[in-house]
Amino acid sequence: MLAEEDVVGLREVAEELHPATVAEFSEGLEDGELWQLLNALPVERQADIFPYYPLPRQVDLLKAADRRHLGPLLECMAPDNRVDLLKELEPELVEEILPLVAKAQRHDIRMLLSCPENSAGALMTTEYASLPAEITAGEAVSRLRSQAPDSESIYYIYVLDPERKLVGFVSLRDLILARPNALVGDLMQRDPISVRVEEPRDEVVQKLARFDFLAIPVVDDHNRLVGIVTHDDVLDAVRQDATDEAQRAAAITPLGESYLEAALLSMTWKRGVWLTILFGTAAVTAMVLARNPIAHPWLVAFIPLVIASGGNSGNQSATLVITALSSGDCKLTDWPRILRREVVLGLLLGLLLAVPGFLLALFYAPTALQALVIPLTIMGVVMLGTMVGSVLPLVFRSLGLDPALMSNPFVSAIVDVVGIVLYMGIAVLMLD
Amino acid sequence: MLAEEDVVGLREVAEELHPATVAEFSEGLEDGELWQLLNALPVERQADIFPYYPLPRQVDLLKAADRRHLGPLLECMAPDNRVDLLKELEPELVEEILPLVAKAQRHDIRMLLSCPENSAGALMTTEYASLPAEITAGEAVSRLRSQAPDSESIYYIYVLDPERKLVGFVSLRDLILARPNALVGDLMQRDPISVRVEEPRDEVVQKLARFDFLAIPVVDDHNRLVGIVTHDDVLDAVRQDATDEAQRAAAITPLGESYLEAALLSMTWKRGVWLTILFGTAAVTAMVLARNPIAHPWLVAFIPLVIASGGNSGNQSATLVITALSSGDCKLTDWPRILRREVVLGLLLGLLLAVPGFLLALFYAPTALQALVIPLTIMGVVMLGTMVGSVLPLVFRSLGLDPALMSNPFVSAIVDVVGIVLYMGIAVLMLD
Repeated sequence: MLAEEDVVGLREVAEELHPATVAEFSEGLEDGELWQLLNALPVERQADIFPYYPLPRQVDLLKAADRRHLGPLLECMAPDNRVDLLKELEPELVEEILPLVAKAQRHDIRMLLSCPENSAGALMTTEYASLPAEITAGEAVSRLRSQAPDSESIYYIYVLDPERKLVGFVSLRDLILARPNALVGDLMQRDPISVRVEEPRDEVVQKLARFDFLAIPVVDDHNRLVGIVTHDDVLDAVRQDATDEAQRAAAITPLGESYLEAALLSMTWKRGVWLTILFGTAAVTAMVLARNPIAHPWLVAFIPLVIASGGNSGNQSATLVITALSSGDCKLTDWPRILRREVVLGLLLGLLLAVPGFLLALFYAPTALQALVIPLTIMGVVMLGTMVGSVLPLVFRSLGLDPALMSNPFVSAIVDVVGIVLYMGIAVLMLD
Repeated sequence: MLAEEDVVGLREVAEELHPATVAEFSEGLEDGELWQLLNALPVERQADIFPYYPLPRQVDLLKAADRRHLGPLLECMAPDNRVDLLKELEPELVEEILPLVAKAQRHDIRMLLSCPENSAGALMTTEYASLPAEITAGEAVSRLRSQAPDSESIYYIYVLDPERKLVGFVSLRDLILARPNALVGDLMQRDPISVRVEEPRDEVVQKLARFDFLAIPVVDDHNRLVGIVTHDDVLDAVRQDATDEAQRAAAITPLGESYLEAALLSMTWKRGVWLTILFGTAAVTAMVLARNPIAHPWLVAFIPLVIASGGNSGNQSATLVITALSSGDCKLTDWPRILRREVVLGLLLGLLLAVPGFLLALFYAPTALQALVIPLTIMGVVMLGTMVGSVLPLVFRSLGLDPALMSNPFVSAIVDVVGIVLYMGIAVLMLD
């Protein structure tokens, strides 16, 4: 259809399908062809489809676009999608583009651009439905008809006082089910649950998930409504966070893009930098061992086993604490309880592994007494693992860092060095 | 208020607050007190609050309840929450309770109970709004008023033919904005995106997230609507999956409950069983090393470093492949591309670590030529790590297992054994 310049055909297809589907099918086109397709559509439809392309592609398309198109397109885009895109551009380019956009929206863009990363403000959109408390349900519905807010944001309506302070909340369902002459002020739920614009993203997610909301209102320090965070953006954020956290936990700077599409050199950097840091800590273990050679060859054979036992149990503890912190199951102030639990678990798990460790050592050690070095060391490194594993994410969190950040590999690295020293110490005590 | 048996006061407080908040505040009460509170409320309100207690608590409450209360309570609960609860009970108890519930709902419960775990059916609810195509928008709105379906499920309305086949979809927004005499059949979007009842949960999540839906319809083999999966249940599923996957990746059977509330013995089991399995593979490494003692003490010093390099790079690869599979960024059939990428990355990362490895070895090796053992081994184990790390999750997925299941610790275990053999092989070649 593109080759035949069948504008009517293109428009029909693109109007019938979901914007996400249109984006998916057209993603393979060249920038020029893609603009040919988009330009066959009304600008509102272009603005619906555009945010479904991956962000790097949106940037390319924007740069390839005719400048005259940009103003109307940006004006029609949802405020949150628009700002997500503008954040990816060079600041000079943003300054060049902003004058193309109407004044009210320019103001809106600057406000959203100024919200700190990972705050409620960075997740929110400024498109929402609001009403005063004094009108009736019937009037409310007809006002909503004329506001006709975009897609889902019509279902939750926030009730504002003349100073735009958030005083209540009604759902479209409540308005439809109410008698038409009932007052919004009587129907509304007072003091609705809200988040503040600077509140961390984790807490926004936890609140929206706990209350099963479609959207959660975002207010400033004076309780004035500034935006809403919608369910779909929270779902995207949760999925992205899960990927990022898993990658951080495995010592990778989050790719932030599809694995198969990431450039090999950028991936080498994102992995290599952390591997090199971990190599540094492993080098310390090597230096300790080189300075204090282990005299008994049978003890050498158990080095990997001792290290793995500590690393695996530490890995478990770190992951349990990280997942509990990020799901809101435990807080920083729970640290004494966490540490107590992990000490007990370390003891139990250490005992569990010490038994097969002792049996295995009996085969290789000259005497049963000497074989005791292995179970004793295993007890020690497993307890070390559970303690370091549980404390390190808490330390990271208290420093304001992401607890998932490298906790697992750092735990292994620390347990490696200290575990080896412990091993040598116990061996010297028992054997010499 | 409980002590004073202030039923009116209790009711007022519990009606004013969000059900999640009531559940949170009352969770600390004894079972008896909690029932005293719930019984002060109408049964519909009880049914709203009940699902917000953690599942184990819901089970306890159910068992402590007066049997006469159970029928009405279960009838009022949302179908998906009701089934989630019944799944936790012993089958005999379910058979005892089912006769207390009205026939239509008993049928509904049996249908939902029969859906396989991790399918769309297991996530769905059977409470949705539906309309025929032949009526007008005005009639549709008044029918919805009389159906008054629960909470959010009123916003998406599915259009069914007389055989209950899914033919279209309208949103409440479309109905409100349309002329009252427009036909639903003309307003609706035809052939809406749906999932089949046995479709895996991952794909339901990916579809709902891609299209930013509030809910996605679930159909049977004949395209008949059987239920919907709503945004809030998808969000809960994604959050739970993220936690479960992280725990599996760290060699823990998913706790399925809050970390601080899990019993220590159950946690010892969920961690201990995998630690013991991993101990088994580490024991193989010990046996290999005991059979083939390493003669040069400086080579012994580098054992932990060599093992850590392979383990860390393997860990990275496994995590990247697992996250790409679970976010839908790559599929099983992409395996040749994945493997090719990881071989190249293994080469680059191996080179990156080989350089500091060589420099460090120069300090301890008798000659520079002998020091070459270390960089060569590092190259080898890093490549081994990236290959095993990328292939193992793909193998797990092709066997129908969760790719996150133990991939990371198994990768480390395999790389440990093979890495040690490689190390000894290279040492023999270069030094003897």
